[in-house]
Amino acid sequence: MVAQVLFAAGDKRWRLYEAPLREALEAAGIACELATDLPRETVEYIVYAPDSELQDFSVFPRLKAVLNLWAGVEGVVGNKTLTVPLARMVDDEGLTQGMVEWVTGHALRHHLGMDAHIINPGHVWRAKAPPLASDRPVTVLGLGVLGAACGQALARLGFPVTGWSRTAKQLDGLRCLHGADGLDKALRGAQVVVLLLPDTPATRNLLNAERLALLAPGAFILNPGRGTLIDDEALLAALDGGQVGHATLDVFRTEPLPRGHPFWAHPRVTVTPHIASETRIAPAARVVAENIRRGEAGAPFLHLVDRAAGY
Amino acid sequence: MVAQVLFAAGDKRWRLYEAPLREALEAAGIACELATDLPRETVEYIVYAPDSELQDFSVFPRLKAVLNLWAGVEGVVGNKTLTVPLARMVDDEGLTQGMVEWVTGHALRHHLGMDAHIINPGHVWRAKAPPLASDRPVTVLGLGVLGAACGQALARLGFPVTGWSRTAKQLDGLRCLHGADGLDKALRGAQVVVLLLPDTPATRNLLNAERLALLAPGAFILNPGRGTLIDDEALLAALDGGQVGHATLDVFRTEPLPRGHPFWAHPRVTVTPHIASETRIAPAARVVAENIRRGEAGAPFLHLVDRAAGY
Repeated sequence: MVAQVLFAAGDKRWRLYEAPLREALEAAGIACELATDLPRETVEYIVYAPDSELQDFSVFPRLKAVLNLWAGVEGVVGNKTLTVPLARMVDDEGLTQGMVEWVTGHALRHHLGMDAHIINPGHVWRAKAPPLASDRPVTVLGLGVLGAACGQALARLGFPVTGWSRTAKQLDGLRCLHGADGLDKALRGAQVVVLLLPDTPATRNLLNAERLALLAPGAFILNPGRGTLIDDEALLAALDGGQVGHATLDVFRTEPLPRGHPFWAHPRVTVTPHIASETRIAPAARVVAENIRRGEAGAPFLHLVDRAAGY
Repeated sequence: MVAQVLFAAGDKRWRLYEAPLREALEAAGIACELATDLPRETVEYIVYAPDSELQDFSVFPRLKAVLNLWAGVEGVVGNKTLTVPLARMVDDEGLTQGMVEWVTGHALRHHLGMDAHIINPGHVWRAKAPPLASDRPVTVLGLGVLGAACGQALARLGFPVTGWSRTAKQLDGLRCLHGADGLDKALRGAQVVVLLLPDTPATRNLLNAERLALLAPGAFILNPGRGTLIDDEALLAALDGGQVGHATLDVFRTEPLPRGHPFWAHPRVTVTPHIASETRIAPAARVVAENIRRGEAGAPFLHLVDRAAGY
């Protein structure tokens, strides 16, 4: 049996995914026909992205599953023509690991004061060692999968880490606080703040002027979470006044960050282009291959979407 | 018995170390005479720095041990007048932790391509995620306390780490190679190389043109070890030719790095001012006190230097 796999996620992604998908399918021991064009009556699996031109799934009589290339399925879950199982991308390797690397790397960058060495046009030799991580309190707001993983990675490196979440949690290696009272306590005296909260009405502008004032003077802000979590005007004022030493931001209210936005030119803001956590092609290809292997073996698919709940 | 301890590491360090040393000695339960000047015939222990004025150890008939205040002993190990045990500083809290932070931070910096975001005068939004750490092979040369700790910290972050040492070692989480054959194998295809070898005749210019050519094209070099480990001319040629993507160097043949040295102005070299690992005073004082306690109790000293090997 040769599985018939239609790739329907656009030409640009085909160029990126074709080789990794073929490699992952071969590694999974799956004989298959993988193409962007296949006779409708043969198609068994569709590798999909919600922005695809393909919107009518009713024309594929032998379709077994639709395998979405990323986690968000709001663009496909309501499609009435889709009656076969739909799987989301859950790429722990890419999303969580990538986030841990970005957060750990930028936390260490600010902790070690790297920028003064990276940009040192005067060639000044300032032989002053930074404090140890154990003297640099870090607070992580949001203790979902990503926040917990980042907090624990920072704790393993020696930082004293406080984690905050809306509801009570317990995590090894972290001081965990929760609720409104816990938030002020978590922020007070923090030298590094990492924002990994979801975007909800309750989290919008959470880091405002009053809360920024609770941090240790010169604190560093890392935002790889959502652009809406910070009151941008308050952050700019805190940067100009010195209360915040540097902000490294990966997410913004408008992306790409518009040219001329004050964050671009601010000497104490680093903009990274929403790269902290992204589905990585190679591991994503392995997740797709594993699901096709399961389909062929009659095993349950991974990461199936609950169509009623919508995710 | 009152141990006679001579502090011979300079006046400036005496001012920094006197109180922490007295405190650590008292905490270790050692009755001692600690001073910068003692009758030669009474001296039993010397707290030492290689840049000390004291270079003739033959004048101390009752000397039991020389306790170096830092890890590098190349400035004292060849001293023919030194016939008693010589201990290096192994200060896990300060030296090891600080080194792990510097190495992990700069490895992540290069891995994530941070510099392109830190220095981005054109305000370009390049939304391309870096590979994951699992796709970035790292090689650590030198598996002493520092190399082992750094290698294991990088492995915990997901990097595939190869460690190399002169003699065979085994360390959890690392592929360990050794000897001359192992060195070429360790370097071949490495994308990040961390130098944590001691300065000995055998390690001088170890990273030369031939060995640099074994690395993956565009590899990153981190040298927080010793300035002599790299053939500087070969490194500059490899940087100019693209074989090395960036070198971040903390140690140099002459320190401070002389003004006008090509490393200062090279766009793909970052100079940090010998700050990767610095003895932190309080924990170092505790290590010295512990060794004096051991000497008084007739127990083996910690961190003894192998005089034949030179470290």
